Amino acid sequence: MSAITGCKERVNDSLAGKCCLVLGAGGFIGGHVSRELHRRGALVHGFGRRQSYPEALDGIRFTKAEFSDRATLARAVDGADYVFHLLASGTPESSNRDPVADLEAGVSGTLHMLAICRAAGVRKVIFVSSGGTVYGVPASVPIDECAQTNPICAYGVSRLAIEKYLHLYLRLHGLDYAVLRAANPFGPWQDPQRRQGVIPAIMHSVLHKRPAEIWGDGFVVRDFIYVADVAEAVALVATYSGEQRVFNVGSGVGRSVLNVVSDIVGVLGGEAARILYKPARDSDVPVNILNTALIRRELGWVARTDWLVGLELTASWLQRRYDRTFPIRQLV
Amino acid sequence: MSAITGCKERVNDSLAGKCCLVLGAGGFIGGHVSRELHRRGALVHGFGRRQSYPEALDGIRFTKAEFSDRATLARAVDGADYVFHLLASGTPESSNRDPVADLEAGVSGTLHMLAICRAAGVRKVIFVSSGGTVYGVPASVPIDECAQTNPICAYGVSRLAIEKYLHLYLRLHGLDYAVLRAANPFGPWQDPQRRQGVIPAIMHSVLHKRPAEIWGDGFVVRDFIYVADVAEAVALVATYSGEQRVFNVGSGVGRSVLNVVSDIVGVLGGEAARILYKPARDSDVPVNILNTALIRRELGWVARTDWLVGLELTASWLQRRYDRTFPIRQLV
Repeated sequence: MSAITGCKERVNDSLAGKCCLVLGAGGFIGGHVSRELHRRGALVHGFGRRQSYPEALDGIRFTKAEFSDRATLARAVDGADYVFHLLASGTPESSNRDPVADLEAGVSGTLHMLAICRAAGVRKVIFVSSGGTVYGVPASVPIDECAQTNPICAYGVSRLAIEKYLHLYLRLHGLDYAVLRAANPFGPWQDPQRRQGVIPAIMHSVLHKRPAEIWGDGFVVRDFIYVADVAEAVALVATYSGEQRVFNVGSGVGRSVLNVVSDIVGVLGGEAARILYKPARDSDVPVNILNTALIRRELGWVARTDWLVGLELTASWLQRRYDRTFPIRQLV
Repeated sequence: MSAITGCKERVNDSLAGKCCLVLGAGGFIGGHVSRELHRRGALVHGFGRRQSYPEALDGIRFTKAEFSDRATLARAVDGADYVFHLLASGTPESSNRDPVADLEAGVSGTLHMLAICRAAGVRKVIFVSSGGTVYGVPASVPIDECAQTNPICAYGVSRLAIEKYLHLYLRLHGLDYAVLRAANPFGPWQDPQRRQGVIPAIMHSVLHKRPAEIWGDGFVVRDFIYVADVAEAVALVATYSGEQRVFNVGSGVGRSVLNVVSDIVGVLGGEAARILYKPARDSDVPVNILNTALIRRELGWVARTDWLVGLELTASWLQRRYDRTFPIRQLV
């Protein structure tokens, strides 16, 4: 546990033996959260539509079902102490093509889930929101939790609406919650072929000697955070008992996509990457860097994984998972 | 027009001959907005589920249809320069009983409407949001537009989500918009028997010599604004061309419900009212007073109707509409 002095009374690291339901456990962040909770001795139950990388959930119970299957969801929630909501309703880009579908899958589904959690007496719902989209174009960086929220993608609007409903359910029904606004997580089990994140996608292209595709001029700046650090924050916030409810989770460091490409090439030990520039996407803000002072103060959490180490861990996983013949050294 | 010097270049009072579609024209605020636009020479077309007070729309075209009837809505939007969105998805109190219904009727319906407006080339969508609910419990009063927004009723969350989607549609598709966060409007055509607002309800009770029912201890403070002033702001913002998009619309004055009862009794010229205290409602914030500096600066708008005159106008309408035998003097 990374709690610094003064946070210990607010973060009671006692997940051992607690029933933790992880919605979206079969996905990228959900897999890491499930393992982190499992490592801390929690009784973890994963729930989701599919398992992208079944090895991520080794030894963890998993129910394969749609979020909209309320009977199955209610059975899964029954007996859970904590419910972790990591279900995404698509991507920022896809949400702009069909905002109604994003709203109905993401927000209506969450409202039904909250009613189930309330009836079941769940202690706390932990929602991993999107620090990369809820703020929209920031007035200044790093962005703190009180900044204006004007998303430029429907996905950001629906994440924000879920945050507001969580606040409402605490106020109306006493259902406790925490929101983690995660920046841009990266790491193992982030599918390089499903546009989940720029880092594995670029790595995959470079390893296959294909041009790295980037949207726009490559100068957009993001706050990349290694996914295991996010998972640690999620575990810590579950047993946090302070006053705050909404936390940024990021590295606090901004990196341009072009810098990322360059660092990836350095880690992979290859030549300079070829870059295929594609049109800028309307869902991309020019810059996003999160201020993480609040979570540091309240939870004692800081992003611990060094940037290059995080890239190496990701590259090593990609190599093992997708092609054992890649000519890179065994990194981990 | 109430524009003060300096606002004239931003508010071009040229609604004459413009096609204005008013969604929710059959309701309380919608009726006043329709008349204000009509008075300014616009070609007004009302749209709504019903006309609560048909006399409010004398001489104004009205299409009776459900908001969910998209084919009829699309025909109504076709050719409109401006679309005024005054449809409510229930009340703050009812929304907390069924947040999913509130979300789907209010927000999904609005997203479909925005797609129609975009396809039809509408110049601007003007949305009357809820200054009384989107902020939730304020950190301080008067509340400015940049304050935190944490509603304590689902109605407030869905109004806020609509605001965010409007911002998104401007950004993505160039569909212009304005949001007016109206405080607590009151006036003629506010149904005293449908829990639309506390003022006509209390007046109606006092006039009928029944106890005035109030929720809670009567110390909750609201920013009451005469509805014709809101309608004027709505008309002004349609042709505003400045940078701002979200405006508070209120009197800037806070009054407790007990003060309101006392002033109503004064206006009606009767004895002290009996009060029936009912349990406080969980959707009620303790205080709500809006800072209206922004709309004053940008539109030159201020609430012009004196508080007691507004009460007299409302009482006079109630008397004429519901009972000509009430023993009060003819006020207007």
